[in-house]
Amino acid sequence: MSGDPENPEHPERAAVAALADDFLSDLREWLAIPSIGVDPAHRGDVRESAQWLADALRRDGWPEVQVWDAGPALPAVYACWPAEDPEAPTVLVYGHHDVQPVDPVERWRHPPFEPTLVGEELFGRGASDDKGQVAMHLLGVKAHLAARAAANPAVTIKLFVEGEEESGSPHLVPLLDDHRADLACDLVVFTDTPLYARDAPTICTGQRGVYGAEVVFTGGTSDVHSGRAGGGVPNPATAIARLVAALHDDRGRVRLRDFYTDVVEPSAAERADYAALPFDEDVWLANSGGAQAVSGEEGWSTLARVWVRPTAEVNGIHGGYTGPGLKTIVPADASVKLSFRLVPNQRPEQVAEALREFVAAHTPPGLHAEVIPLGDGAPPYAADVAHPAVGALKDAVEAAFDQPVRFSRTGGSGPAAILHDRLGVPVVYLGATLPDDHIHAPNERVVVPLLLRGAEAAARLWRLLPERLS
Amino acid sequence: MSGDPENPEHPERAAVAALADDFLSDLREWLAIPSIGVDPAHRGDVRESAQWLADALRRDGWPEVQVWDAGPALPAVYACWPAEDPEAPTVLVYGHHDVQPVDPVERWRHPPFEPTLVGEELFGRGASDDKGQVAMHLLGVKAHLAARAAANPAVTIKLFVEGEEESGSPHLVPLLDDHRADLACDLVVFTDTPLYARDAPTICTGQRGVYGAEVVFTGGTSDVHSGRAGGGVPNPATAIARLVAALHDDRGRVRLRDFYTDVVEPSAAERADYAALPFDEDVWLANSGGAQAVSGEEGWSTLARVWVRPTAEVNGIHGGYTGPGLKTIVPADASVKLSFRLVPNQRPEQVAEALREFVAAHTPPGLHAEVIPLGDGAPPYAADVAHPAVGALKDAVEAAFDQPVRFSRTGGSGPAAILHDRLGVPVVYLGATLPDDHIHAPNERVVVPLLLRGAEAAARLWRLLPERLS
Ligand SMILES: [Zn+2]
Ligand SMILES: [Zn+2]
Repeated sequence: MSGDPENPEHPERAAVAALADDFLSDLREWLAIPSIGVDPAHRGDVRESAQWLADALRRDGWPEVQVWDAGPALPAVYACWPAEDPEAPTVLVYGHHDVQPVDPVERWRHPPFEPTLVGEELFGRGASDDKGQVAMHLLGVKAHLAARAAANPAVTIKLFVEGEEESGSPHLVPLLDDHRADLACDLVVFTDTPLYARDAPTICTGQRGVYGAEVVFTGGTSDVHSGRAGGGVPNPATAIARLVAALHDDRGRVRLRDFYTDVVEPSAAERADYAALPFDEDVWLANSGGAQAVSGEEGWSTLARVWVRPTAEVNGIHGGYTGPGLKTIVPADASVKLSFRLVPNQRPEQVAEALREFVAAHTPPGLHAEVIPLGDGAPPYAADVAHPAVGALKDAVEAAFDQPVRFSRTGGSGPAAILHDRLGVPVVYLGATLPDDHIHAPNERVVVPLLLRGAEAAARLWRLLPERLS
Repeated sequence: MSGDPENPEHPERAAVAALADDFLSDLREWLAIPSIGVDPAHRGDVRESAQWLADALRRDGWPEVQVWDAGPALPAVYACWPAEDPEAPTVLVYGHHDVQPVDPVERWRHPPFEPTLVGEELFGRGASDDKGQVAMHLLGVKAHLAARAAANPAVTIKLFVEGEEESGSPHLVPLLDDHRADLACDLVVFTDTPLYARDAPTICTGQRGVYGAEVVFTGGTSDVHSGRAGGGVPNPATAIARLVAALHDDRGRVRLRDFYTDVVEPSAAERADYAALPFDEDVWLANSGGAQAVSGEEGWSTLARVWVRPTAEVNGIHGGYTGPGLKTIVPADASVKLSFRLVPNQRPEQVAEALREFVAAHTPPGLHAEVIPLGDGAPPYAADVAHPAVGALKDAVEAAFDQPVRFSRTGGSGPAAILHDRLGVPVVYLGATLPDDHIHAPNERVVVPLLLRGAEAAARLWRLLPERLS
């Protein structure tokens, strides 16, 4: 790290440095709680994780701390620290404390719930996604208060940490609606996205949405021997394959009706930034499941393909006999799980409707088709990079990381659009993790110095915002 | 049954009628032995089944009976009953005594190895495929001897009953070669095919061949989250689907190189017979796994599609996540099991080669393709309907069934072509079972009066052959 922590130009950095040891030991305590939200067996752990966070916030001095555990949603934590100035803007920090399952557990080098520090890296489930980044904000608020030597922050800071993000936030909308007054704010700071790279810190400006569905084709009531009927009846597995093959045209574009009609391209500033980011294809492929080649929609770079272009992917396909050897049947049915990554301003409902039409048009005579939505999907979101909050964020991050930062996006999905829609305010992204943190995989880790930089950026942002949003 | 069994024009019928009770009790004994050849746990039962048959043949007076149980093949039974006249032709009857597995066993109305007579139907695994038809031949020989009141048949009759047909006859070629002298003959009578229908008895004149292979496309070394790489890397499941979709053209023809080059169409006599056979599409569909519509190569009837036209079918397809809900991954790999039904004079080796080329041409950059043959396949076979043995067979069957019979085929596969190739003689088909006997399925049965007619047809054939083949 460059910059002198004792330099009065860097009071936030000095404060973060002074609090770093406590931060790390607190985070390790929290990471030891296996709050696997998607696994009902870990329901108690999710509750314990929420309680741990509430206790930590109270220890830190947050005046108002609540655990929301009344409805069907897994427990969420809410806290509020009002600004000195009642006219100051209100920001809501969003994150989540539920974590992904740990299978295959045998591939972890350290037990997933025994957080282990190896050099600068802290290994453990949730270290990066998302407990590490929530803890980063707790540190950021403490550093902000220490740096300005005040009992209250420069903006009213609210914290909303849900427990169902990894389950697709199924109860987020009612939760937001039930707590509308508590959550009222001028800006959401969404904290669940990575930097582009350690040597290229960036500000994320958007996430893709997603819509998933399963298509099932059924022919007969049972498999039939192909010696009897092969060549004489429709084969549901062949039909599913033809449906999938028809999903893209020769240029790699998705052939659902009006799929591209509402697509908004990123701003010129963002496009220029994407092109200027360092991109090593071999490294990117190695970090993409060891893929052997890039591929996709004609006329777009790999980063554009995975950040700002919508897609159709087969997540799973199944039909007939898949055991050892040959079994010469015409299967009774076959199915495919499809998911579509969406970009602004595509809507999951529109894609769902177009998919139903597409399946109907590609169902051969003699087969019955069923389209089963897999959840409601998540709309895409992109921040307006011309908004003054983005300018403040950029200044804060550049100061904290001691270098110019560019814009990036992430190809994954999250509830940013829901927060935007229900709360009626802009959402900006502040994250300090890395794309190769192995989130959702064995050996999840976080790079601790980046979390400290992120906390410093947050502390700086709280200082900058009153003037920038006025 | 019409026809007077005491009428001297029907001595074979009278003999069959006199022997029918013993026939049935013998068959029930044999069917009680669970000779499931594909299941190593039933190896002893296959041996017991072979021994039962050898004992039954000795009881019947066959002068030479052997159990071939030396090599890797499951035990086969060989027997020979020389003709009175050393110049008389030699026929070899082919059948098998191994049976299919019985899963799902809970769907059997009677235990599969407790043969149960309900009216005219005998239920039990192997009743139709193929013990019932082998037993029919034992009865046929006894009736032939009784009808001509002789100690020896009019032709030298050899019997070869293998134990591995349901396993794809993997050791048949070496078995035939090892016993070349024993098996030398002028004609093979192949007994493992059905009549067209109870009210439309037919002579089968051919079976399709088969070639099966699995195609595997591999992209990365692991699945990758579609939020990271979706839209930017090739998806093996999509590629497998495109490969399958490309296998047929718009008219339902298979697009492998030279796939149709060697196809020989059936004779005009056969085509006329197919068109004249009663065909109820609803019944056919109901008996074809409950399929809802016919479908297939343009310009051909359903019977032609499943009897004399080659096909490509997906028997199984698999890739990615197929559990409950959505998992937004790009799978690391995907695979499809394909099988091709072949007709004369297609060769499995040629199709295997064309498939390899086709897969290579349809492997997108970044994916690795593997084509794994699932066995050697079986060549197709069709009898020359102008051969005098077919004429004799037709006369024998028409006399036994008291009606004109037409030619039919079956869409399944068997070792007829191998017998033809290795023994160097024509193969004709004599069967007396039905397509809806539920072979390879729960509640397999055989219609006993049809087996008696079949035995009579065999007995008549042995009487007719010396003159017809001279
Ligand atoms: Zn997350
Ligand atoms: Zn059989």
